Amino acid sequence: MTEHTSKQFDSELESVRSRVLQMGGLVEQQIVRATEALVSGDMALLERVIADDHRVNALEVEIDESCSHILARRQPAAGDLRLIIAVIKTITDLERIGDEAEKIARMGKLIHGAERQHMPRMDLSHVADRACAMLRQSLDAFARLDISEAARVVKQDRAVDDEFRAVMRQLITFMMEDPRTITRSLEILFIAKAIERIGDHSKNMAEYVVYMVKGRDVRHTAIEDVEKEILE
Amino acid sequence: MTEHTSKQFDSELESVRSRVLQMGGLVEQQIVRATEALVSGDMALLERVIADDHRVNALEVEIDESCSHILARRQPAAGDLRLIIAVIKTITDLERIGDEAEKIARMGKLIHGAERQHMPRMDLSHVADRACAMLRQSLDAFARLDISEAARVVKQDRAVDDEFRAVMRQLITFMMEDPRTITRSLEILFIAKAIERIGDHSKNMAEYVVYMVKGRDVRHTAIEDVEKEILE
Repeated sequence: MTEHTSKQFDSELESVRSRVLQMGGLVEQQIVRATEALVSGDMALLERVIADDHRVNALEVEIDESCSHILARRQPAAGDLRLIIAVIKTITDLERIGDEAEKIARMGKLIHGAERQHMPRMDLSHVADRACAMLRQSLDAFARLDISEAARVVKQDRAVDDEFRAVMRQLITFMMEDPRTITRSLEILFIAKAIERIGDHSKNMAEYVVYMVKGRDVRHTAIEDVEKEILE
Repeated sequence: MTEHTSKQFDSELESVRSRVLQMGGLVEQQIVRATEALVSGDMALLERVIADDHRVNALEVEIDESCSHILARRQPAAGDLRLIIAVIKTITDLERIGDEAEKIARMGKLIHGAERQHMPRMDLSHVADRACAMLRQSLDAFARLDISEAARVVKQDRAVDDEFRAVMRQLITFMMEDPRTITRSLEILFIAKAIERIGDHSKNMAEYVVYMVKGRDVRHTAIEDVEKEILE
């Protein structure tokens, strides 16, 4: 391979990496907007999140195509190949996080459209912030190939799952005490579920970073063993 | 490439394809067992579904590794490359369908552990059968490279989503009428949600079949346009 071709190849890989981060930034913005508008009741912003989901989808298709082209024409090996495989998987999770942001916005519309009648007192911003931090950290780990950061993301997923269960228990109490809150409570429950899934997808992305850097598959591996892998 | 190498390459691709179908068969068995045991209350079978999830995970990791090896050593092009990319994506969805089967089994344990007290009268077998049929059809479409079958799967996803919403409305009625059913109703709701997601994943898999055969990405495309693509 001539130096020229190799430089062009490097810039193709760099372009894929930077578009993954761009897609990640867009998805993060979608979550932040959806959860802010959920609290403020800003219907226009909720509509905008729903309308902007196609931008996330378009980036997924575009990056996927770039990866196929690189695989077909550049025949990457070793670390470059792992990068491309990790990107193909990462953008699937990013696209699904985008879908969750859209779901949150749709639930927000239902809740505020009903003028928050019979609304359980429930603040999800804490758990939403935590899931959003997991997404940001897994993108950072991807950008800096930082497997310690990736391990921290994997570890936090349990906390998000625990918070989801706490939300569910509290909602059951509200529903039992006042059955008129049932419909609203279920909407809140689906929002909490969407947030929990954002944590799951962020964890998947963090695991791909470990695969990319270490060449080992740490999915379906207990966090203690993931940490051992990283220290090796 | 000598004929010998080419034959070996063909057999590697064939092995990947057959292991995807094997993984698909296992995942289908997991759903069938989970939903049957949910009705019958067979605790041992529910436990077995949970215990067997690691077999699904192991197949995903194994097939993923084979795909990486083929990409690195065989440098596949055109249709072979699309097959490998489609497989990498398909097994991610199959693994997540496996997770949903495990979730159904866990909810089944909670329900039967509580001796079905305050249980809403709700039969999910119809919607479960439909989601399971979608999975089977998308695997058939993959095995036979049948894009008409794939398009039928994409089309059925709407019906499963509609049935999920009907289940939710009915559960809300039960909960309103008798708040003691709330905890059980939420468990049923999560099972219905898991079934709906099996439909979503099967639809994703059907879309990868169209990509594999036609080389076009039909995700985020309306079903009417998918059918047009196929007729072209």
